[in-house]
Amino acid sequence: MNEYVSLSHGSGGRQSRDLIKKVFTERFGIAEPLTDSAIIDESFPPGSRVVITTDAYVVDPLFFPGGDIGKLAVTGTINDIAVSGARIVAIAVSFIIEEGFPVNDLVKIAESMALEAERAGTRLVSGDTKVVGKGKCDRLFITTTGTGFLLPQHEHISSGLKVTEGDRLIINGPVGNHAIAVLGARNDLSFKTEVLSDCRSLNRLTEKIVDNCGEIHFMRDLTRGGLAAVLNELKEMAKCIITIDEDSVPVDEPVRGLCEVLGFDPFSLANEGKLIVVAGKNEFRKVLEIMRSDPAGFDSSVIGEIVAGDRPAVILNTSAGGKRIIELPSGLQLPRIC
Amino acid sequence: MNEYVSLSHGSGGRQSRDLIKKVFTERFGIAEPLTDSAIIDESFPPGSRVVITTDAYVVDPLFFPGGDIGKLAVTGTINDIAVSGARIVAIAVSFIIEEGFPVNDLVKIAESMALEAERAGTRLVSGDTKVVGKGKCDRLFITTTGTGFLLPQHEHISSGLKVTEGDRLIINGPVGNHAIAVLGARNDLSFKTEVLSDCRSLNRLTEKIVDNCGEIHFMRDLTRGGLAAVLNELKEMAKCIITIDEDSVPVDEPVRGLCEVLGFDPFSLANEGKLIVVAGKNEFRKVLEIMRSDPAGFDSSVIGEIVAGDRPAVILNTSAGGKRIIELPSGLQLPRIC
Repeated sequence: MNEYVSLSHGSGGRQSRDLIKKVFTERFGIAEPLTDSAIIDESFPPGSRVVITTDAYVVDPLFFPGGDIGKLAVTGTINDIAVSGARIVAIAVSFIIEEGFPVNDLVKIAESMALEAERAGTRLVSGDTKVVGKGKCDRLFITTTGTGFLLPQHEHISSGLKVTEGDRLIINGPVGNHAIAVLGARNDLSFKTEVLSDCRSLNRLTEKIVDNCGEIHFMRDLTRGGLAAVLNELKEMAKCIITIDEDSVPVDEPVRGLCEVLGFDPFSLANEGKLIVVAGKNEFRKVLEIMRSDPAGFDSSVIGEIVAGDRPAVILNTSAGGKRIIELPSGLQLPRIC
Repeated sequence: MNEYVSLSHGSGGRQSRDLIKKVFTERFGIAEPLTDSAIIDESFPPGSRVVITTDAYVVDPLFFPGGDIGKLAVTGTINDIAVSGARIVAIAVSFIIEEGFPVNDLVKIAESMALEAERAGTRLVSGDTKVVGKGKCDRLFITTTGTGFLLPQHEHISSGLKVTEGDRLIINGPVGNHAIAVLGARNDLSFKTEVLSDCRSLNRLTEKIVDNCGEIHFMRDLTRGGLAAVLNELKEMAKCIITIDEDSVPVDEPVRGLCEVLGFDPFSLANEGKLIVVAGKNEFRKVLEIMRSDPAGFDSSVIGEIVAGDRPAVILNTSAGGKRIIELPSGLQLPRIC
């Protein structure tokens, strides 16, 4: 199948349908007839709310150690729904493909998406395929939109409004691996690394947490802008002071080394399988234990605490024994990391 | 505000948030705090099913007579939900922006999206903004994903399974205007036209139809591939013969003229505010009357009928008194028409 995507694959006629059938329909488990909208068969529990999230993926390169754009798009959307405390039900997928893109690569990416959806226990439904001329997009962009339901007892986990003094912040593992893995895979860079992206669905982990603990006050995955961005957003939403112990935030040695060489702050680097959980002071040990028992959280650790104070701030207790403010990352970080 | 989008607007840090707040948040009526997923406040009626649809919009040019990429993205998504017989509840929006894109144009497009959502009685929720380098995408791509609910009595309208002999096909107005309007707005073409895109939300029309009629057997909007593509898909889904009277399919005079000059078939051209409704033989007159009473359907007419036969086909009774097969459009139609 040494074929390439052509503009006629995007015309909505016979070639469009052939491409969709050949590449997507069966792999995604989408039943005929193909319609423009998908009816979600699962019924949503009474009293639950519908949750929706959408993200465009423009990662460069499309394939990187530990993943590819397809796996990234599926996990990213699953994780956005998961950290809101909701259950993912279905994912809609939209492709923008550059003319000349190899059909074989599209198949690999579609397989990767199907595999990740199956692993996470969700389904790919409804899709769209647009083709643009050579040079009008950079090979392939994917937008995934997740739909899920939120039970009443899990509301407000994403808003930060439940966060209160004494809460502990728990992270599920080392930061920065995704950004370094993608960067290392770019042809124009002079370093090579063995670092793998942490790209991973977190829904089974978050479901264990919210099902078993009553004091989950906030969860968020640490994507673009990394830990630093999320902590600063939380500070603004919850109007609180957050203290973080630098030594307790895990950073893998190769990531730390490359950050020093390249001048990056690992706290601002994108992750694709990391989250922070803010848990009440009476329950954080139990939360930590649950997280460590899950394959996506065995490296979890408590990294900080919510403390009283008038002006919202994120304060880092440094390894050297000092204090510094963690700011919202500003200016150009690493473009097209997700 | 003579600003341009830069790569740092896509980094997930301060500049990302500033751009989102300045351009989107208030216009879209999205409340702070900004989170990655939106909880949909409207409750879905008991027994209803969730419906989801997603589409990428890559139209070239971004602004054309009768609309722009933003209006197109919102109406297109509303219409996909509407023709399934469902009610639109919320739309999630994802932007891929080329570095250097004028913020003013982004504001115009955002305003156009907000206006169209308001007109149609729906809401824009949850969004995403990615920025790619100069030359890595063609100015702006938008992916919109709609969520709605389907009442049990309106199921199977999109599947074609209810279609039966004697059903009539009704169209809500002339075909081909969107494609000709977009084509005429392209700089590299030598003709100019006063044709406006028919870009329009159809949800109020479809709701009137399904609320008042019990024999609605199929509905579909006529986008990429036009009337010809939809009729061929319906033929396959319903395993039926469809006859269409050429004289009864409305085509505006300037569209017909340009099609003759340029060698296009108006039946294969994309529309963005047209649909066909297949109604039972005892009810089609009532459906036609309801459609004609709506601003989106005052030009409605019966264009054909479902007849008995062994082999699925779409047969055109031509103006000249002959018969010909309408095929699924094949090969390159008009790229980037939506």
